[in-house]
Amino acid sequence: MKKFLVLNGPNLNMLGKREPKIYGKQSLEVLEENLKKLENSFQVVIDPFQSNHEGVLIDKLHSAMNEYDGIILNPGAFTHYSYAIRDAIASIDVPVIEVHISNVHAREEFRHKSVTAPVTAGQIVGFGLFGYELAVKALAEYINRGE
Amino acid sequence: MKKFLVLNGPNLNMLGKREPKIYGKQSLEVLEENLKKLENSFQVVIDPFQSNHEGVLIDKLHSAMNEYDGIILNPGAFTHYSYAIRDAIASIDVPVIEVHISNVHAREEFRHKSVTAPVTAGQIVGFGLFGYELAVKALAEYINRGE
Amino acid sequence: MKKFLVLNGPNLNMLGKREPKIYGKQSLEVLEENLKKLENSFQVVIDPFQSNHEGVLIDKLHSAMNEYDGIILNPGAFTHYSYAIRDAIASIDVPVIEVHISNVHAREEFRHKSVTAPVTAGQIVGFGLFGYELAVKALAEYINRGE
Amino acid sequence: MKKFLVLNGPNLNMLGKREPKIYGKQSLEVLEENLKKLENSFQVVIDPFQSNHEGVLIDKLHSAMNEYDGIILNPGAFTHYSYAIRDAIASIDVPVIEVHISNVHAREEFRHKSVTAPVTAGQIVGFGLFGYELAVKALAEYINRGE
Amino acid sequence: MKKFLVLNGPNLNMLGKREPKIYGKQSLEVLEENLKKLENSFQVVIDPFQSNHEGVLIDKLHSAMNEYDGIILNPGAFTHYSYAIRDAIASIDVPVIEVHISNVHAREEFRHKSVTAPVTAGQIVGFGLFGYELAVKALAEYINRGE
Amino acid sequence: MKKFLVLNGPNLNMLGKREPKIYGKQSLEVLEENLKKLENSFQVVIDPFQSNHEGVLIDKLHSAMNEYDGIILNPGAFTHYSYAIRDAIASIDVPVIEVHISNVHAREEFRHKSVTAPVTAGQIVGFGLFGYELAVKALAEYINRGE
Amino acid sequence: MKKFLVLNGPNLNMLGKREPKIYGKQSLEVLEENLKKLENSFQVVIDPFQSNHEGVLIDKLHSAMNEYDGIILNPGAFTHYSYAIRDAIASIDVPVIEVHISNVHAREEFRHKSVTAPVTAGQIVGFGLFGYELAVKALAEYINRGE
Amino acid sequence: MKKFLVLNGPNLNMLGKREPKIYGKQSLEVLEENLKKLENSFQVVIDPFQSNHEGVLIDKLHSAMNEYDGIILNPGAFTHYSYAIRDAIASIDVPVIEVHISNVHAREEFRHKSVTAPVTAGQIVGFGLFGYELAVKALAEYINRGE
Amino acid sequence: MKKFLVLNGPNLNMLGKREPKIYGKQSLEVLEENLKKLENSFQVVIDPFQSNHEGVLIDKLHSAMNEYDGIILNPGAFTHYSYAIRDAIASIDVPVIEVHISNVHAREEFRHKSVTAPVTAGQIVGFGLFGYELAVKALAEYINRGE
Amino acid sequence: MKKFLVLNGPNLNMLGKREPKIYGKQSLEVLEENLKKLENSFQVVIDPFQSNHEGVLIDKLHSAMNEYDGIILNPGAFTHYSYAIRDAIASIDVPVIEVHISNVHAREEFRHKSVTAPVTAGQIVGFGLFGYELAVKALAEYINRGE
Amino acid sequence: MKKFLVLNGPNLNMLGKREPKIYGKQSLEVLEENLKKLENSFQVVIDPFQSNHEGVLIDKLHSAMNEYDGIILNPGAFTHYSYAIRDAIASIDVPVIEVHISNVHAREEFRHKSVTAPVTAGQIVGFGLFGYELAVKALAEYINRGE
Amino acid sequence: MKKFLVLNGPNLNMLGKREPKIYGKQSLEVLEENLKKLENSFQVVIDPFQSNHEGVLIDKLHSAMNEYDGIILNPGAFTHYSYAIRDAIASIDVPVIEVHISNVHAREEFRHKSVTAPVTAGQIVGFGLFGYELAVKALAEYINRGE
Repeated sequence: MKKFLVLNGPNLNMLGKREPKIYGKQSLEVLEENLKKLENSFQVVIDPFQSNHEGVLIDKLHSAMNEYDGIILNPGAFTHYSYAIRDAIASIDVPVIEVHISNVHAREEFRHKSVTAPVTAGQIVGFGLFGYELAVKALAEYINRGE
Repeated sequence: MKKFLVLNGPNLNMLGKREPKIYGKQSLEVLEENLKKLENSFQVVIDPFQSNHEGVLIDKLHSAMNEYDGIILNPGAFTHYSYAIRDAIASIDVPVIEVHISNVHAREEFRHKSVTAPVTAGQIVGFGLFGYELAVKALAEYINRGE
Repeated sequence: MKKFLVLNGPNLNMLGKREPKIYGKQSLEVLEENLKKLENSFQVVIDPFQSNHEGVLIDKLHSAMNEYDGIILNPGAFTHYSYAIRDAIASIDVPVIEVHISNVHAREEFRHKSVTAPVTAGQIVGFGLFGYELAVKALAEYINRGE
Repeated sequence: MKKFLVLNGPNLNMLGKREPKIYGKQSLEVLEENLKKLENSFQVVIDPFQSNHEGVLIDKLHSAMNEYDGIILNPGAFTHYSYAIRDAIASIDVPVIEVHISNVHAREEFRHKSVTAPVTAGQIVGFGLFGYELAVKALAEYINRGE
Repeated sequence: MKKFLVLNGPNLNMLGKREPKIYGKQSLEVLEENLKKLENSFQVVIDPFQSNHEGVLIDKLHSAMNEYDGIILNPGAFTHYSYAIRDAIASIDVPVIEVHISNVHAREEFRHKSVTAPVTAGQIVGFGLFGYELAVKALAEYINRGE
Repeated sequence: MKKFLVLNGPNLNMLGKREPKIYGKQSLEVLEENLKKLENSFQVVIDPFQSNHEGVLIDKLHSAMNEYDGIILNPGAFTHYSYAIRDAIASIDVPVIEVHISNVHAREEFRHKSVTAPVTAGQIVGFGLFGYELAVKALAEYINRGE
Repeated sequence: MKKFLVLNGPNLNMLGKREPKIYGKQSLEVLEENLKKLENSFQVVIDPFQSNHEGVLIDKLHSAMNEYDGIILNPGAFTHYSYAIRDAIASIDVPVIEVHISNVHAREEFRHKSVTAPVTAGQIVGFGLFGYELAVKALAEYINRGE
Repeated sequence: MKKFLVLNGPNLNMLGKREPKIYGKQSLEVLEENLKKLENSFQVVIDPFQSNHEGVLIDKLHSAMNEYDGIILNPGAFTHYSYAIRDAIASIDVPVIEVHISNVHAREEFRHKSVTAPVTAGQIVGFGLFGYELAVKALAEYINRGE
Repeated sequence: MKKFLVLNGPNLNMLGKREPKIYGKQSLEVLEENLKKLENSFQVVIDPFQSNHEGVLIDKLHSAMNEYDGIILNPGAFTHYSYAIRDAIASIDVPVIEVHISNVHAREEFRHKSVTAPVTAGQIVGFGLFGYELAVKALAEYINRGE
Repeated sequence: MKKFLVLNGPNLNMLGKREPKIYGKQSLEVLEENLKKLENSFQVVIDPFQSNHEGVLIDKLHSAMNEYDGIILNPGAFTHYSYAIRDAIASIDVPVIEVHISNVHAREEFRHKSVTAPVTAGQIVGFGLFGYELAVKALAEYINRGE
Repeated sequence: MKKFLVLNGPNLNMLGKREPKIYGKQSLEVLEENLKKLENSFQVVIDPFQSNHEGVLIDKLHSAMNEYDGIILNPGAFTHYSYAIRDAIASIDVPVIEVHISNVHAREEFRHKSVTAPVTAGQIVGFGLFGYELAVKALAEYINRGE
Repeated sequence: MKKFLVLNGPNLNMLGKREPKIYGKQSLEVLEENLKKLENSFQVVIDPFQSNHEGVLIDKLHSAMNEYDGIILNPGAFTHYSYAIRDAIASIDVPVIEVHISNVHAREEFRHKSVTAPVTAGQIVGFGLFGYELAVKALAEYINRGE
């Protein structure tokens, strides 16, 4: 059975508490539970993980190399400057899909640029927490096509 | 029953013929047929339309106002400079989802910027033609949530 | 008797329906009727025309060369990138006055720059639909002075 | 009866003497007399004032707050850098219309940007001294609509 | 026998009428007749076509794919912003030569950049209408070499 | 006894009247009275002064050289372009503290840059009128340390 | 009793050892002791904390949400690029005051821009370690006013 | 006999007192006296004038029109942003020579750009107060040649 | 009989040896011989010259003034920065045609800009060594037209 | 005996596994062993250390202050944005040599800029893993010279 | 007796022949003769030298080190890009005065920036050939002051 | 036996005489002698060469093609703008190592960018004259690895 890692970056532990007009009212725990519920229909194992530490995210991406078949990554604000995470994605063979909860293109100028996007398989932007579900679907399809 | 418009911009009629390494080998006709097949499972009508003319795309967006519940739009190269299409999207009440077949962020610099993205509901980027299917799913969900 | 062309560009057919906080609640039809009412007091014929198609606007500008004494042009979003319309204005001998309904300088950064302004006779910006009336007055004066 | 202030900035006292190809041959005195002649037809009092001093213009804008119903302002070269005048405009409740005699967009690059325009009601650009007359008309209309 | 398409973009129908100091006094009709006269000496068929519509030019480029052996393209002002025409050129297998009548590098800043040039075979710039003749010669050579 | 000059630049005479959401409801007079009340506790004389004239502010800075032990300066919009005031600060031996009432970094882009800050002793930004009190405290400390 | 967190970012543990001409000769320990001495006069508890780890600072900011009434933050070099810390500040309800020991505007270009400033309550810049004392005073005032 | 105006801008009254490493130890009074001593050898009247007020400098430039044969201008920091002074120079027929005491190109970036230089006859930069003497010589020559 | 100078700049002596994928396999000697073969058909003398020295190229351009009727110039990398060669071209009366072997617009960013192009008669770009032949034809035509 | 620290930043633990065309096939372990083998010939102790955590690298740099005589640092992608690591280098007295395995100047634009280089003793770029050996040699020489 | 070198860069041998509206009608020979005539009144030897070769100019600057007391340099177009000449000036102890015949600030944008100015003693710009005479005077004064 | 060329660019003949704080006190002759002494230990012939002429350096690079196995190049200030030298390096098969004596990244902004670096094998920056020795070692290793 395929294994997917759902990796959330800085401040996503504040989901539900943080600027609800932008990020919605649902907590990270609920998001993670809802993703686990998708395991059966997609016939995959889904492991969620969150950290505010750039280094921990990089370590996790590296260790995913032999453990996971695909990664769904919301790099949070690291999206806009962490070339180290970009290099970590490029250094592994596992396909990565970038997810953003809000429509970053409709917000501050600095959120329009993603330094990680060029080394990911694709991006899903602006669909709230439902974007993660779309990403699961996209990842499953992506891997199936590759086989 | 909900009605979705799938609107493809310039050069997308060349799908399958054009730079297959970037855009794949499937033709627009096949894409449109495949999308029609989704009508039953999502309980929607899906109408595909393509034009290389910016003005025709604007007219179509306007006329969609009273006819469609949602729009899936691949503006092609207009993505990067057509403020007129941006204004057309902003001028109607129908939610628009932006789709790009290739990972535009991994290509030429000028493709990294979308002038239409800020006024859309969200973007799905880099998943090939499968991105349209994801967009149908996203649009269905988007509309359900709104009700 | 002098003849004036009032040329409206993309999305101006949505007047009244589109973002009323910015563009007001009056429709294009009403605007055009009101302009017709000025014909007597200014002793001119006023022909309104609208298109969302850049090419149609260019064709219209060209054909105005022998038919009209002056043009009032709201290029809509083409203002910000259509060097083709700029060249069309420069290619004819008819004076052109640029009108913008909203105060474009108080809106998004991209609306601050006009690529057409350098080849027009002048600009009237920010006075709502009344700006067209001012433009008729300005055009009449402009032509009288030239004689 | 409404009162309008016509405020001219630096070097406009040189009208008629200064670069006549750009600014025309009429003096400031004649301009001001001509504007006074409009008082009857618009049923307004029109008070002209000119200064080359940024600080004097700011003081005048402040004092206009309780004395005038509208202001017609040609900030001259201050248009392009005086954020202090911009703030003065923003600090009062009186509507301000920005006028430029020449088509600034057809001249040097630095004249294309107005730091004051975003806080004015509108701009009239390029119609020579006749632009002031248009501004009187625009201001009268602007105030009528607001009542 | 080889077939060449000579494709002229916006405002080139104004040749002879438009800014003769820049573009010369010859009309488009005369240009096209002169090009037809070259058919014998180069043993090619030369079909001229002009449009002010970006979409029409894109359609024409697409349809040239199976009909023409080479294209001579003067994109007019679209040169400087039409990424859609750029993509149309890239989407077909037919070699395209870009022609400009005036020396665009000696004119306004915005004319120095060509968004279409990177996907053409080469450019001929600044030789007036004679540039089209050079392009016919270049295209004939280009195709001969390829065989 | 030490003497402090509190120097307020353009539009600060409008305090209380001007954009109260940004600048509060207290007038300049009240601010100046409140600062006078601090004289005893800090054992300093505090002289307030305000002008909308760049030249007057420069003159005042120069004359402060032998009269004051320290200056609290809110340059208003001059902050963003008056290199003349910057040079005036650099030309005297008296320490200058820059104060801004609002958080300029959370407002328009042009307010993010201070041309005077590099030659001041320090900045206090965003604490409303209370920022002046903090500046008095900072200045007293700054001077004590230097002795 | 109110509780304040004093949060110091990267390299501030080197205070006294590091570039003393810029940062002074006092150690972080002495700074923290001096701040503790202010507890009585301001009737607050002051908890100092320092880390060189961006992630640890983010975690600390999050956990401050229910524990502290205000935060004094010197983000060190993170000031200039850590959008993740910016988002952490924005994600909590606790007011944050930004402090810089040196006058960053008089140093290298990259130190002139703060990505965190727009989401803080205010900044105190350039007063050496005394700036922290000013910040305590400012924070106390800020909170009192809000009640 | 010819008359020359020597016009000094902001902060030049501080000569001798201000940053002597950059501007030398001589006062403005001594400079002006030394220039007066040149009157005989050049057979000109030399009138010195200094102001820190942009508006006063503009007024002086205007009034010089019928009174002086040439102007030596050190605009101080206004050099770098006062488009109003630039326009004042352009509005009069009197030749203006720009002088800078220090080598502005070897100082801060913002001092490298002169907005007034394009409308002056020439510049003399970096020779200390002796630069004014060179300017007198240059102006005398300039006027002689013109006769 | 007319005389043409064919002037090749730095690294063009390496033709055939240097990056053959970009510049082809033909040597400079062969190119020059082939150009000599055109002398009869165009009734001109063609003198080739190559140097890697900017100064030698400038000297050659100057000396061409009385010796040649036209110049075909490939400035090599000097195209992108040698304002000295630009000035040399502008200082002579002989028409200059700029040739580039490769399509410089499809290569590195720095090759997109030509500092010499604005002062040449025209450019021929991207046609390999055949571009020189086109230039001979263009030059012959250019000179004929001028007579 | 001198002690050297070899500090490797993010993703360098992936050496051998990661993009071998760029970084080679040798693992970090082998690199570190090879460096240990140099201890005898240079009469130094060489301690290797790697981390993906910015904060850990900063801590390590601080603690190196009293323990090591020199540092060889490959900051990985932190090179391009970590002003915090830059400040850490500047805060210690130990000389630091920056090493990059690949020729960063021949890769993506963002890799051309190093924010750490200005505060290091020197850089060795592009020699693969052999660059570390060169750095050991350079460091030994650097320290010898300083004694 | 002092010795001055007058060093003229590229294209200045074309004086009188080249663009006389910009550079005047006098030849370089006449300029050099006129400068020789100043030898007596300034009690200096003046050696003129011109080259179009950057390397020759650098060699000349180096060899001037022990031979000349001062240098008057017109670097021609090298002014705008030759960092090598800048370094040559910085590498010698001889004072250098930069001269430009035309007012470079009133010409093309690229002529506004001088890369050599920061390492010269001063600049004299825009006074035609008379600028060289002023430079002789300035140099004599500069050297006298230094003694 | 392998042969290495050590190629020094403009102003490096001034070593020891020029700005000794930056470039040290050793002359070029001593540097070249010291490099010759390395010949035995590396079993190579080392030929030093210096020129201030860009063209001579290009000629030398070309002629090195069949004569040398590797090149150590310090392009001096040409580093920052000579695309002609860049192309010369790219046109030959011999590996080139770029050396800079000073840490260019800690100096003026314009020295941070190298236009030659992208086509060299690697760079050694900031180690004074010892950097050349490191380059010999690096080159020897580079060539050995390649065999």
